[in-house]
Amino acid sequence: MKENKYDDPNFFASYGLMPRSTAGLEAAGEWPAFRALLPDLADKTVLDLGCGYGWHCRYAMEQKAKRVTGIDLSKKMLEKAKELTQDQNIQYECVAIEDITFNEATFDVVISSLALHYVSDFQQVCGHVYHCLVPSGTFVFSVEHPVFTAMASQDWFYDEQKNRMHWPIDHYFSEGLRKTRFLNEDVIKYHRTVETYLSNLLDAGFTINRLCEPKPSASVLKNYPDMVHELRRPIFLLFSVSK
Amino acid sequence: MKENKYDDPNFFASYGLMPRSTAGLEAAGEWPAFRALLPDLADKTVLDLGCGYGWHCRYAMEQKAKRVTGIDLSKKMLEKAKELTQDQNIQYECVAIEDITFNEATFDVVISSLALHYVSDFQQVCGHVYHCLVPSGTFVFSVEHPVFTAMASQDWFYDEQKNRMHWPIDHYFSEGLRKTRFLNEDVIKYHRTVETYLSNLLDAGFTINRLCEPKPSASVLKNYPDMVHELRRPIFLLFSVSK
Repeated sequence: MKENKYDDPNFFASYGLMPRSTAGLEAAGEWPAFRALLPDLADKTVLDLGCGYGWHCRYAMEQKAKRVTGIDLSKKMLEKAKELTQDQNIQYECVAIEDITFNEATFDVVISSLALHYVSDFQQVCGHVYHCLVPSGTFVFSVEHPVFTAMASQDWFYDEQKNRMHWPIDHYFSEGLRKTRFLNEDVIKYHRTVETYLSNLLDAGFTINRLCEPKPSASVLKNYPDMVHELRRPIFLLFSVSK
Repeated sequence: MKENKYDDPNFFASYGLMPRSTAGLEAAGEWPAFRALLPDLADKTVLDLGCGYGWHCRYAMEQKAKRVTGIDLSKKMLEKAKELTQDQNIQYECVAIEDITFNEATFDVVISSLALHYVSDFQQVCGHVYHCLVPSGTFVFSVEHPVFTAMASQDWFYDEQKNRMHWPIDHYFSEGLRKTRFLNEDVIKYHRTVETYLSNLLDAGFTINRLCEPKPSASVLKNYPDMVHELRRPIFLLFSVSK
């Protein structure tokens, strides 16, 4: 099922108020970890799966990429992306991640930021990405961590005084659809285990370069003391893999 | 710190009553997954880190291994291993995993079953294993899953009727020593994140073949209905990596 939640006007409006929407990559907690996994983008052709506002596409051009393609299912996201983009070397296409049909060896680098947990069939995506990457090409992506997606509630366990007691896990091995809440709306996500993410990548033919569970840095914790809770459980899972 | 808990008489006696102690590998829930990760052992030299009763050593010889070395810190474990072993091609050595000093390219395969979460410095172990493996040699091991080791309590969160409500996670990014309880005794284990396990392996030079989070099979669930709780959170983490 391909849910196009970002074209829902209320959801889109709420998303537009998030720090990462107004301030871009620097306001995204996992961005330093994501950036650290990227290969040198100079003179590279780059594909961004689920590009949203296009922040990563523009970052790639700042790093002297040759050409960037950003795809997204949401017309509203792409309108916003085009509004924020001047560069002629960035192309946006309205297509679902599941439906990409790029030719073999089209891209040097494929990236995807927090989009693939919306996709039901990750194995298929791995196959498509492998196909459209050049030999030795790199695929870097982030998803919500399986510890975070296991329970549809995606919330802490609180005591009666509303203190965050711990993060609850359940249904870990029941992979598949989760009806979650995000930005006060119903949103469908897909839970997969760490094993499934890694096995799907290996089965597609990829070599694992890095797996990363980002956590807030000391300076972030100093500026945003409430982020200390992000040390209590992983929320994001990042991979760098190569064809 | 190298805790030699298995030489504690009470602990050793309790361990001797566990199904995996009396009935061997077939009584160990993660064994089918572990076995599936092993390469062909025929004519191979094998090292078992933390061999305990020697079940894996004897299995390797059943698979026609050329020679097996089992090491363990516990004299009592090794006494029991020797008692259970007739094969002259299995050698047992009383040495801590941290202190192995085998020559370069001594073994074709290194295995370790549920021992490495007792080791403080996993990066160092990876270096030693890499050193003593032949080129293209394989390292297969199991540890308690980071989801299981994060909280020292290592227990479910119960409601007032003692129902298992969910598995709690906390302190995930606080790696290091955990004072846990096992077999009614205090036992020291070391918590590491999934990222740390994988990065330590990659940094030592290994290539990742497989990561596995085993779960009970349908037939196990049929025979042991209470095992359904094992579908609720991962308890073991297994790797197969190659030099």
